[in-house]
Amino acid sequence: MIERLCIIGIGLIGGSIACSARRLRLCRQIVGVDGDSANLRRALDLGVIDVACTDAAEGAAGADWVMIATPVGAFETVFTALRPVWSEHAVYSDAGSTKQSVLDAARKVFGYVPPNFVPGHPIAGAERSGVEAATGDLYQGKRVILTPLPATSPAALKRVEAFWEAIGAKVSKMAPDHHDEVLAATSHLPHVLAYALVHMLGRKNEQQEIFQYAAGGFRDFTRIASSDPTMWLDICLANQEHIAPLIGQLCDELNRVKAMLETGAAADLFEFFASARNARQRFLDQLEK
Amino acid sequence: MIERLCIIGIGLIGGSIACSARRLRLCRQIVGVDGDSANLRRALDLGVIDVACTDAAEGAAGADWVMIATPVGAFETVFTALRPVWSEHAVYSDAGSTKQSVLDAARKVFGYVPPNFVPGHPIAGAERSGVEAATGDLYQGKRVILTPLPATSPAALKRVEAFWEAIGAKVSKMAPDHHDEVLAATSHLPHVLAYALVHMLGRKNEQQEIFQYAAGGFRDFTRIASSDPTMWLDICLANQEHIAPLIGQLCDELNRVKAMLETGAAADLFEFFASARNARQRFLDQLEK
Repeated sequence: MIERLCIIGIGLIGGSIACSARRLRLCRQIVGVDGDSANLRRALDLGVIDVACTDAAEGAAGADWVMIATPVGAFETVFTALRPVWSEHAVYSDAGSTKQSVLDAARKVFGYVPPNFVPGHPIAGAERSGVEAATGDLYQGKRVILTPLPATSPAALKRVEAFWEAIGAKVSKMAPDHHDEVLAATSHLPHVLAYALVHMLGRKNEQQEIFQYAAGGFRDFTRIASSDPTMWLDICLANQEHIAPLIGQLCDELNRVKAMLETGAAADLFEFFASARNARQRFLDQLEK
Repeated sequence: MIERLCIIGIGLIGGSIACSARRLRLCRQIVGVDGDSANLRRALDLGVIDVACTDAAEGAAGADWVMIATPVGAFETVFTALRPVWSEHAVYSDAGSTKQSVLDAARKVFGYVPPNFVPGHPIAGAERSGVEAATGDLYQGKRVILTPLPATSPAALKRVEAFWEAIGAKVSKMAPDHHDEVLAATSHLPHVLAYALVHMLGRKNEQQEIFQYAAGGFRDFTRIASSDPTMWLDICLANQEHIAPLIGQLCDELNRVKAMLETGAAADLFEFFASARNARQRFLDQLEK
């Protein structure tokens, strides 16, 4: 049982951690920390948190469990605020979308990564954001990746793993750099792509009103371009090292398709499309496991 | 009232035209033509059509209404088959995804575009395909673009327009080339993009099993990569003239993002993402109209 769970960043992710912990009675008291006082008030009004704090140090002081669920660009500030009240008896973890940048922020502030900090990332989210979108079952059946270091405390790791499993998540462990590489491919690149496509078509729409002839497939395809730009700016800058080369590789693929179109290479193009469809089927089969 | 409606190509699109016409009692008899005799038998068994024909000329002979709903790559063959039985008393139309290529096929076979042929394209579809997926309400609320030529018979045009409106569609008219340009942007380019992304990630998955860490957003984003490769090969080759330059423009956009990432141009990148999100919101607003 957690006595005092402090969650820094009460948006969809942090709010849903609070709702899940509350639903399963995993903690006695939830302290919410958020820089946005209107959001904090809504979290209190909705009963997502018991105590509201705008100051991270104040909120984390006396907590036996601290979860950082802010956008990744805020971690250095958060670690700096937590440093004076950092307790070796508490467990610290996070839900940041990139892991190397979070560890770099910790090293910058502490000089090393504290052993009782367990880096993690729940692969869950939605275009919806803010505490209003938080639910007690967001993590049910979702994957959570933990990226412990050799120096990470086994006891802290075990507790964080048990917490996520208790709220229904499937926990995997991998190296931080591998996490960033995998997520660059399956999440960050698709977001960049959706933003780039809609950015380009948005300008065309101003001239030709093309959007009125777009169908349901386009709505699905571009859904992630409605994601929060602030959050995605943070993620892309934090993981640009992995994302930028993937953009280059994707343009190579696209230029191959362009050349096949221009030369009318029907058999090659069919093979390309068919192998993509097969790959997606493998992804769907994986998803069902 | 249509006496004998002949539909050439009984897949999702043609089958749904049959189901819609039947549901609203717009015709007395439906003749289905399809090269795939197993599919034709299913259409008969499901009651989607009354008469099955594997030969287009035989099916169309005596019909007062002929709808071509095959993949666009088959139009030249279909027009060649129809030519000997082409009747000036019947109305001919189609549901092809590209319009210039369909008109080119007609010109090649007839030497001109017959005035009683009304080119059209319903903006509806799904990853599902085949007659089993056909429904009587597929076109309810969907857009249909007709691309008549100056020589198109006003009476034929009026009947085709009234047919689509009767089965619930919203009809727009535009020039064939403009249709192909607009659809290249809102439909063909996104499909190429989804195929290219999944093709690339499929190879990475073989090495690193990345798909198991992909979430719901990825499923939505890549849904169109499960579309029928044969149909999309046809569409892409038929409209390569508009699609290839768009691929080039998209790579330019992507390379701009890559440069912003590499130089850490946070303000520009935020502006780029935010303007994409706003553009998608305009698309959603449009969709609700």
